[in-house]
Amino acid sequence: MATIKDIADKLGISVSTVSKGLNDAKDISENLRQQVLDTAVELGYTKKKMRTASDDKVCIFIENMDYKKADDFGYDIVLGYKQAAFRAGMSVEIEETGPDFQAAHRYESYILEKGYKAAFLVGFALGDPWMAQLGSTSVPTILLDNFIKSNPNISYIGTDSEEGIDMAIAHLVALGHEKIAFLDGSKDSMISDQRMRAYLRSISHHHLPLDPSMAVYGYFVADAAHYHVPGFLDMGVTAIVCGNDEIAEGVIASCKAEGYSVPEDISVIGFDDIPAAASMVPPLTTVRQNRLEIGKCSFMILRTLMDGVALSKNLLRPSLIVRHSTALARPRVMVRRHDSKDSVLHVNPRLYDEALKERQL
Amino acid sequence: MATIKDIADKLGISVSTVSKGLNDAKDISENLRQQVLDTAVELGYTKKKMRTASDDKVCIFIENMDYKKADDFGYDIVLGYKQAAFRAGMSVEIEETGPDFQAAHRYESYILEKGYKAAFLVGFALGDPWMAQLGSTSVPTILLDNFIKSNPNISYIGTDSEEGIDMAIAHLVALGHEKIAFLDGSKDSMISDQRMRAYLRSISHHHLPLDPSMAVYGYFVADAAHYHVPGFLDMGVTAIVCGNDEIAEGVIASCKAEGYSVPEDISVIGFDDIPAAASMVPPLTTVRQNRLEIGKCSFMILRTLMDGVALSKNLLRPSLIVRHSTALARPRVMVRRHDSKDSVLHVNPRLYDEALKERQL
Repeated sequence: MATIKDIADKLGISVSTVSKGLNDAKDISENLRQQVLDTAVELGYTKKKMRTASDDKVCIFIENMDYKKADDFGYDIVLGYKQAAFRAGMSVEIEETGPDFQAAHRYESYILEKGYKAAFLVGFALGDPWMAQLGSTSVPTILLDNFIKSNPNISYIGTDSEEGIDMAIAHLVALGHEKIAFLDGSKDSMISDQRMRAYLRSISHHHLPLDPSMAVYGYFVADAAHYHVPGFLDMGVTAIVCGNDEIAEGVIASCKAEGYSVPEDISVIGFDDIPAAASMVPPLTTVRQNRLEIGKCSFMILRTLMDGVALSKNLLRPSLIVRHSTALARPRVMVRRHDSKDSVLHVNPRLYDEALKERQL
Repeated sequence: MATIKDIADKLGISVSTVSKGLNDAKDISENLRQQVLDTAVELGYTKKKMRTASDDKVCIFIENMDYKKADDFGYDIVLGYKQAAFRAGMSVEIEETGPDFQAAHRYESYILEKGYKAAFLVGFALGDPWMAQLGSTSVPTILLDNFIKSNPNISYIGTDSEEGIDMAIAHLVALGHEKIAFLDGSKDSMISDQRMRAYLRSISHHHLPLDPSMAVYGYFVADAAHYHVPGFLDMGVTAIVCGNDEIAEGVIASCKAEGYSVPEDISVIGFDDIPAAASMVPPLTTVRQNRLEIGKCSFMILRTLMDGVALSKNLLRPSLIVRHSTALARPRVMVRRHDSKDSVLHVNPRLYDEALKERQL
């Protein structure tokens, strides 16, 4: 259990200043007071007096995502959400869920029963039982990376994939790369589709070679890489952009297994900036999703939904974190050493054709 | 100058209750207090005590849009923005602007000079002098219907055109319409492009005839209609969706001039729900942009930008307002009476091809 001293130590301020912040004293700046409150939430300080003024509570449902340790993907999302809720005088409950639990409880009944004013859904899959119920719920709800049509009580939050992929490609182009492949996540994920379109548009925008066998779907795991990387290498690519950081980790491993160095021979870029990205070998250049911001914004947008304002799509700016997995392009001789793989799932032909048409104009 | 009694009368509550709301008394509900504050802002009540606690002020720059009277398009946008700012203890200044003014003042210098914390830009055109300066400004800024790449201090707010056009087409399909034309606004407007894509996708989704001469760009004014409507009528369309309400008004006039009744022969749908839409003859069925929500959300998103959270794209849900310009489709005999017009600007071939490809999948 954290103490006032822990908060003071973390912020490098005195215990009495922390105490002022927690007790809403007038003689510290608003900015410092907010930092004290945010840190109290982060450290799990729970003195009664600090509790929220109202009994209002909101929920975050987490499926299929770790969040308890500081280097878990969901940690900052949960923290940002709690911090924003706490500033607004609301408390947050975290509920882990899954398809079985959802099949056993109706979404709206469960929310009512638990007394939540609103909910944030993280890590849900399109086929989850609750997803089908969201089209008509009256509970203010925000989803990370999933969109529900028509219902004014539901909102979608995510990171702007188009801008993120643009940043990655522009960075590679500045380093002299011309043959840039894309290993995306799973087909039929909304996020994969966004990132594939973004890749095709960006490649087209830079007048680079647009070859459908250089843009393929895999899965959102490292293992996807070894099915696709040998083919990319045969084609003579000098850079590989990945649908997320796990895929990038697999791509680096596959390049090494095939006798190529990263970044000397091949540059690799991820997406997300998971905590592990900085300690990969080499440290990964990647497009960062700011997870603390995702958490904060999600609460702020829920407030607007609770006020009856139907914000439906909300995208955060990504940023490019340049580490050591990208370098100047080294000219490569193209050698086809592998047989073509029938199992490769190429870019959706519709998206490819779109990109070709855009180029023609 | 509005009095406490005006506020009381408008809300149907007592003067003493209004007074409690304005003076932050504890014995009225938070909800009622907010209504009192919103109404005070709406009526322009300006008692000193009610002034904002801080000296923080934000700005709304308005170009090329009326906002002073309740039936002006910009009225609710300004009102919602002021109400949200007032709840947060900030005051709002309204500045009318234009290209000449912008050419004479640098954006950032002007904001600093006037002491604004943030700004909302409404009605700006892509070629405006300030637009080029927004890529690098550090002033938290939100734009209605314009997007600026990369700068984390800038955000875009608008209404979800795709969902709005979907609602319009679905309504017409339910009434039995199959040949549905689209008269869009100006080419090279981001909004026109969004709405054109949305039309093509929706027509494709409903497996209706997709004919490039049924989807054309005009201008965002009523006069655009008479160049295009005769051609649509010759093609045998039974419904015309329009890029905004002014265009729809022109379309109705052109249909009448050509001897067709709306909605008996031709159904017409607008976009925006401007105040005049309800009193057109016939009253216009249209996709509503909720302007009060646009105003409120714009301020709320500026708050997140001021907090350093880079929300970049934000879309509000539209709603379909069904009035009397749409009716059951009446089968029509197709008669070509007019010569084809060379001046007609057809759908962008790239968008049309995209739509065709999507259909093929």
